[in-house]
Amino acid sequence: MTAPTPESLPAPPYYAVVFTAVRTAGDNGYAEMDERLFELAADQPGFLGIDAARGANGLGITVSYWRDEASIAAWRNHAEHTVARAQGREHWYASFSLHVAKVERAYGFVRPADA
Amino acid sequence: MTAPTPESLPAPPYYAVVFTAVRTAGDNGYAEMDERLFELAADQPGFLGIDAARGANGLGITVSYWRDEASIAAWRNHAEHTVARAQGREHWYASFSLHVAKVERAYGFVRPADA
Repeated sequence: MTAPTPESLPAPPYYAVVFTAVRTAGDNGYAEMDERLFELAADQPGFLGIDAARGANGLGITVSYWRDEASIAAWRNHAEHTVARAQGREHWYASFSLHVAKVERAYGFVRPADA
Repeated sequence: MTAPTPESLPAPPYYAVVFTAVRTAGDNGYAEMDERLFELAADQPGFLGIDAARGANGLGITVSYWRDEASIAAWRNHAEHTVARAQGREHWYASFSLHVAKVERAYGFVRPADA
C-alpha cells in the first residue's frame, strides 16, 4: 500500500482518524488481522489512504484518511472490523486512543534529487 | 513526556497536527534537534500533548495536539522551530506531509488489570 501524500489526497476538507495504541505482549493473531484490516479498509467507499508506524517502545500510530464522516461510520460498522475491535480490547491493546478530525489544510515535501 | 490520552486532553474541539515523514540516511544533527524541539513544543502556549512513532522502514508519524489555530501558528513562527524546519528540508527528510485537522471527537481505552 502506498502512503498517501497531499498530492494523492483530494483538496481539504476530508477526515483523518488517528489511532494511537500500545500493544500487549505476544501476537495472539494480531499480525494476520492487522494485514487483513489494512486490505479491507482500502476497499471501503470513501477510503483515501493510510499511514502506520510502530516504534521500538511498542507505541503505534495509524492515521487513515476518509472522504467524509459517513465513510468513517460505514467502516466502523463493517462486520469484520467490529469483530477485530472486540479482539483488540480483549487481547491486543494495553491502551489506545482514537481521534476523529476534519483536515483543514495539508502540504507535503519531496526532497529534490541531488545533482 | 507522557503520551496524551483523551482524559488528559480537553473536550473537543481542539487541533491535531499530523506530521508523517521519511528520514534521509545518517543523523546529521537530527536526534539532538528532535529532542530539543519536543521540549520546546511542550513549553508553548496551547500545547496539549504529543505522540510519536517511527517504524523500522523509516516512516515516522508525529501527532501534536493544540488548543487552537493561534497556538499552531505561534509555534510555526517560533524562531528555533523555523530554523529546524529549514534543516529538515535541507538534510533530514526524504519526504514529509503535514495535516492540520480539527478534532471533533475522541475516546480512549485502557486495559483493565487482569485478575
